[in-house]
Amino acid sequence: MKKRTMFLSMLLCLSVLLLGGVCWAQSEAGLQPAVTNVPGAQYPRIGADSRVEFRFKAPEAQKVQVQVGAVQTPFDMIKGADGVWSVTTPPIVPGFHYYYLVIDGVMVDDPASYTYYGVGKDSSGIDVPEKGVDFYTIKNVPHGTVREQWYHSKTTDSWRHLVIYTPPDYDTNLKARYPVLYLQHGSGEDETGWIRQGHANFILDNLIAAGKAKPMIIVMSNGYAAKAVPAAQPAPSGPAAGLLAEPRMTSGLEEELLNDTIPLIDSAFRTIADQSHRAMAGLSMGSMQTLQITTAHLDTFGYIGAFSGAGFGAGAPDLKTAYNGAFADPAAFNKKVKGFFVGIGTDEPSRMRDGVLAFHKTLDDAGVKHIFYEAPGTAHEWQTWRKDLFQFAPVLFQ
Amino acid sequence: MKKRTMFLSMLLCLSVLLLGGVCWAQSEAGLQPAVTNVPGAQYPRIGADSRVEFRFKAPEAQKVQVQVGAVQTPFDMIKGADGVWSVTTPPIVPGFHYYYLVIDGVMVDDPASYTYYGVGKDSSGIDVPEKGVDFYTIKNVPHGTVREQWYHSKTTDSWRHLVIYTPPDYDTNLKARYPVLYLQHGSGEDETGWIRQGHANFILDNLIAAGKAKPMIIVMSNGYAAKAVPAAQPAPSGPAAGLLAEPRMTSGLEEELLNDTIPLIDSAFRTIADQSHRAMAGLSMGSMQTLQITTAHLDTFGYIGAFSGAGFGAGAPDLKTAYNGAFADPAAFNKKVKGFFVGIGTDEPSRMRDGVLAFHKTLDDAGVKHIFYEAPGTAHEWQTWRKDLFQFAPVLFQ
Repeated sequence: MKKRTMFLSMLLCLSVLLLGGVCWAQSEAGLQPAVTNVPGAQYPRIGADSRVEFRFKAPEAQKVQVQVGAVQTPFDMIKGADGVWSVTTPPIVPGFHYYYLVIDGVMVDDPASYTYYGVGKDSSGIDVPEKGVDFYTIKNVPHGTVREQWYHSKTTDSWRHLVIYTPPDYDTNLKARYPVLYLQHGSGEDETGWIRQGHANFILDNLIAAGKAKPMIIVMSNGYAAKAVPAAQPAPSGPAAGLLAEPRMTSGLEEELLNDTIPLIDSAFRTIADQSHRAMAGLSMGSMQTLQITTAHLDTFGYIGAFSGAGFGAGAPDLKTAYNGAFADPAAFNKKVKGFFVGIGTDEPSRMRDGVLAFHKTLDDAGVKHIFYEAPGTAHEWQTWRKDLFQFAPVLFQ
Repeated sequence: MKKRTMFLSMLLCLSVLLLGGVCWAQSEAGLQPAVTNVPGAQYPRIGADSRVEFRFKAPEAQKVQVQVGAVQTPFDMIKGADGVWSVTTPPIVPGFHYYYLVIDGVMVDDPASYTYYGVGKDSSGIDVPEKGVDFYTIKNVPHGTVREQWYHSKTTDSWRHLVIYTPPDYDTNLKARYPVLYLQHGSGEDETGWIRQGHANFILDNLIAAGKAKPMIIVMSNGYAAKAVPAAQPAPSGPAAGLLAEPRMTSGLEEELLNDTIPLIDSAFRTIADQSHRAMAGLSMGSMQTLQITTAHLDTFGYIGAFSGAGFGAGAPDLKTAYNGAFADPAAFNKKVKGFFVGIGTDEPSRMRDGVLAFHKTLDDAGVKHIFYEAPGTAHEWQTWRKDLFQFAPVLFQ
C-alpha cells in the first residue's frame, strides 16, 4: 500500500514537474492524516518529525495563513495553480492544538478537522502525536462509559449539562461504590474538553487496566456558572461590564458544585460520599477554581490537583491569607489533605510558568506537602494536562 | 428587563442616527439570540416570524454571504462602516439547519454558532423555533442519560463509538429490562446527530413522562461501516473509486449491526433481547439502510421506521423483489411486523418526496399495513425527523 502510494506520488510529481509546477507536496513522503481529521480528509498531514502539512482551497482569497495554538506566529500558505493554498510547517510541539485558518484577515475553522470547544467557540483541533507516548490513546482494554446528564441547577436557575466518566466495571459490579474526581476545564472551554481534547476516559481506562489507578467516577462540570440574579437586581452594565463578565460568569461555581452537582452525583451514582473519596482538579482557570474551592472546603475534598494555574499571576501568594488561609497551618493541611498535586509544563510561557513555580517554592518553604510535576517538553496545552492527569490519578484514593 | 433593553436600544439608535449611521440593527425589536449560539454570542438572532439576523466581522472581505440549509440560495450580506457584514433574512422554515458563511467564495463555519457533524464535516447549526411546538425541548421532567461507548468491531476491524440513550429510571429500577430502538442518522452525518441535532433524548424524556411512550433504550451507531478489507485485497482505485466510496463506506453496516452492535448492547445493557422488543429506524440514508436491513432480518426486528427515504429514487419499488422480498407476501409481513412507519415532510423537495409517496402508495395497494405520516410544513431536515420520532416512539413496544 505504501509502496503504491509512493509510486503514484512520484508519477504525479514527475507530471507536475513537466508542467512546470511545484512538487513539494508529493515529495512529503510518510506524512499521515491527523487523527483529528473528519472522515475522508487527507489533510492536515503530520510527519514523523511532527511537521504538519495544511491545505485549503480558496481560489479567490488574497492571503491565507494557518495559526496553530494561541502563541504561535501564523504560517503563510502558498497558493497553487488549482487555487489550493498549502504550507508545511516546521516541527510542532506534540499534543492537541486549537488552530485556525486566516483568510484575508478573518479567522475561521478548517473544514477538514473536527471542532472542539475552546477559545469560547467550536475551534478546529489537531492532535500531533508524541513519540513513544500513548497513555491517552484507545487500547484493547475494558472501556468505561462517558455519560451526559442534564439537570436544573438551583444556583444558576438554568439547565446544565454534566459529562461523567464511569469506570469499566460500573454497570456490572453493582454492589461496588466508587470515589469521585471533579475535574475542571480551562478558560474558554467547557465540560466536554477533558474527554474530547484530553482523552481523560482513555487515560483512566488504561491506568485502571494496568492496576495503576483505582476505578473512579470523574465528573466534568462547566466552570462557567453565573449565580442566578434576582429579577430586581440589574445585570452589570456600563464600561466595566465587559471586564466583569468572566468573574460574574464563574461566580456561582463554588455554590453550584457544593449545593447542586455533588448532591446530584451522590444521589444518582454509587459513590463513596466522604472527604477521603472525593477529589477536585482542574487546568488553568480550572486550577485556580480548584484551589479556591477546595481550600474553602477541606472537609469535602481530600485530594487537590492544580494543573498550570495558581491564581497569583507571576508572583507568590502569601500563604497566611491566600487560598482561604488553608495553608496558614501547614501541619493541619498536611494531615487533612491526602494528596496535593501541582503541575506545570516545561514549555509553558513564563507568565504561566513563573506563578506556578513561585507557588511550588512557597509551598515547599512553608512545609506544605505536595507532589510537584513538570510535564516535559509541553506547553500551556492539553498534552501537559493529559500528563498531569496520568500522574495525578494514581495518587488518588490509595 | 425587556423594557430596559428596548430603552437602551432606542438610546443607542438615536445616538447612531445623530452620527449619521444606520440604525436597522437596533430597530429589529424582539429578535432573540438563537439557542444554537455559543455562550455570549448575540448573533444570529431570530424573530417571532422566523426571520434571522446574521452578523460577521470581516473588514477585508470583498463579498460575504450566508447559506442556510442545503437548497436555499445564499443571502448577500451588507458591509457596515465597522467592517461587520450583516443581513436579516426573510422568514425561514422552522427547525434545525446547517448553515455557512461564504467569504469571497469560500464556505466556512460561523464562529458564533455551535457546530454539528453534517455534510461530512462539523458545520454551523441554527435552530429556528416552530411556534407552539416544544416536544423536543428540555423540560422539567425526569431526564434519561446519554452514554458514549467505545468498542472494537470485528466487522470493520476498527474502534467504533456508539451513542446510547437510557431512560430516566434505568439506573434506579435495576430489575427492569428494556426494549431497544436502533436509530440511524443520514448521509454526511454521524452517530451524534440524533442527540445533538435531533434532541432524541428530550423527545423520549417528554414522551415517557407523559406516559405516551414506553421507557426504551435508543442505540445510535455510525451508518458508515466499511467492512474490513483483507490485507491482500487492494482498496478500489482508478476513476470509479470516488463513485464507490459511499457504498463501500456503508457496506458493512448490516453485518456490523447484527454481529457486533446488537450482541454488545444485549450483553452490556438490561435489554429484552427478542424481535418484538427490538426496533430499527433511520432518516434519509438511514431510512434506506433500515429498510434494507430490517427486511432481511424480520426475525430480529419487530418494528420499522422509515423517515424520508425509500431507496428507489422518485420511482416505486417492485414489492415482489425489492427489500429482500419481504413484502411479496403482505399478510405474512403484516403478521410478523408489529409496527411499520413511513414518514415524509410536506415541504421536502420532490426528488425526496415523490419516492416516499410512491412507496407509500405501493404498500397501500399491496395491502402492507403501515402508518403514513406527513410532517406539516417541514423540509428534508431535522424538524421533520424530530416529528417522525415523536410520532413513531408511541407506536413502539405497546
